[in-house]
Amino acid sequence: MSNGRAVNGFLLDITGVLYNSIYKSDGVAIAKSAEAVDFLYQHSKVKFLSNAKGNSNRNVARRLQRLGINVREEDVITPAPVVAQYCRENKLRPHLFVRDDVLEYFDGIDTSSPNCVVMGEVEEGFSFDRINRAFRILIDMPKPLLITMGNGKFFQRVDGPCIDVGAFAAALKFSTNCEVLNIGKPSRFYFEQGMNALGMKPEEIVMVGDDLMSDVGGAQACGMRGIQVRTGKWRPDFEKMPVTPDLTADCLYDAVKLIADNGFRL
Amino acid sequence: MSNGRAVNGFLLDITGVLYNSIYKSDGVAIAKSAEAVDFLYQHSKVKFLSNAKGNSNRNVARRLQRLGINVREEDVITPAPVVAQYCRENKLRPHLFVRDDVLEYFDGIDTSSPNCVVMGEVEEGFSFDRINRAFRILIDMPKPLLITMGNGKFFQRVDGPCIDVGAFAAALKFSTNCEVLNIGKPSRFYFEQGMNALGMKPEEIVMVGDDLMSDVGGAQACGMRGIQVRTGKWRPDFEKMPVTPDLTADCLYDAVKLIADNGFRL
Repeated sequence: MSNGRAVNGFLLDITGVLYNSIYKSDGVAIAKSAEAVDFLYQHSKVKFLSNAKGNSNRNVARRLQRLGINVREEDVITPAPVVAQYCRENKLRPHLFVRDDVLEYFDGIDTSSPNCVVMGEVEEGFSFDRINRAFRILIDMPKPLLITMGNGKFFQRVDGPCIDVGAFAAALKFSTNCEVLNIGKPSRFYFEQGMNALGMKPEEIVMVGDDLMSDVGGAQACGMRGIQVRTGKWRPDFEKMPVTPDLTADCLYDAVKLIADNGFRL
Repeated sequence: MSNGRAVNGFLLDITGVLYNSIYKSDGVAIAKSAEAVDFLYQHSKVKFLSNAKGNSNRNVARRLQRLGINVREEDVITPAPVVAQYCRENKLRPHLFVRDDVLEYFDGIDTSSPNCVVMGEVEEGFSFDRINRAFRILIDMPKPLLITMGNGKFFQRVDGPCIDVGAFAAALKFSTNCEVLNIGKPSRFYFEQGMNALGMKPEEIVMVGDDLMSDVGGAQACGMRGIQVRTGKWRPDFEKMPVTPDLTADCLYDAVKLIADNGFRL
């Protein structure tokens, strides 16, 4: 563990690493994550790379601030604005199956006669009618394209795990044979948003997350180091899965402390 | 076409063959399907093998009768009672993600501490909370088992195609890696219910349906002949798909007339 390679920047997942989510509330901060974030702002470089699809970056940052975690809005990366930019650059006219709070990112994008579906909605705004509307648009396209904000199997709320958008992408693929483009972890394109925000090469960066496949495995596939925390959606059976983290720690604070004590090397 | 093999019995799909469904109404009879059914009751043997999962056999028959199609309740086969019988025989304790109208079939079956999920719900009773409840039960099982009433990609309503239960089975499989057991067409186990009801060998029977893969392909895989009608969910691109019907007809009446005119041979 001593020596190791330099760690010049941190990408942190948000949900399950900084705080645990509770349905229709702000959730609860994970112990000492606020201290860890303050420490990284002072002694290293840090950005927050989340698959959160329900809120604008501003509202993500505000919620964390209400929980006492001083994350700056401009350091938050979520899929919705990245997807909107992708639509602009590729002249896509999306049908938006997303939360109202992220609609602002799509302002000015033509959504008439859609040539793709953008999906980032689960929980309260999810309904049979809404997924069926997405289905009908895809089934009528010669080359159906679904852009999904993350491709997770489940997300964790304090009351238990919840089926996530990746499952509904699988549902739409089953019924329409659509191409599925994930703009969210673990896609390389999305991790590159984090690398660009830090202005670093992947080998300088560690990604800290609670999702073994999406956070840790995805980061490693891009040349970063991946750290698993035992908070959020972590489950003991992760240790039987085919991804080996560069480090496993009980929580973000422990991971940060361990790396800092080692002279920012891992 | 002349000669051919004897046709001693008919299995008819219901939705898209006898009538077209309309959300929250009885739907509309397909032209001359009532005459075709009367003719088969008089001159051959007929049973109705449907993947309809929302209504009891009694209510399926009653609706058809209201539309002027004289189908007898005792000749209707739908998945729910077959699934219930399967649960009884295999000592399964299902979590029921089904319509209220079919709950009666599960009377007396222990549903406490479930060891499988039974899914047959789409449309109005489908919600994020309900699929999430099914997800949570499956994710906690050592060997998760999902029994699905049919595995279709979509069903057809008069207002357009609708994403079907097969898609949500794919969603749950994606998130929980569950085993999926389809009790509905095209499973052999389910087609055997139709053969047993007719008391015939598969080579004596023709299946008439609007779903190329599930009705026609499924029947052929069991040794029956499969007839495609150009009603219901039929789409021109079916002709590019890897199943070749033994006969394609514009509607049930035309298929029945053609076979009868040929001396009940095909």
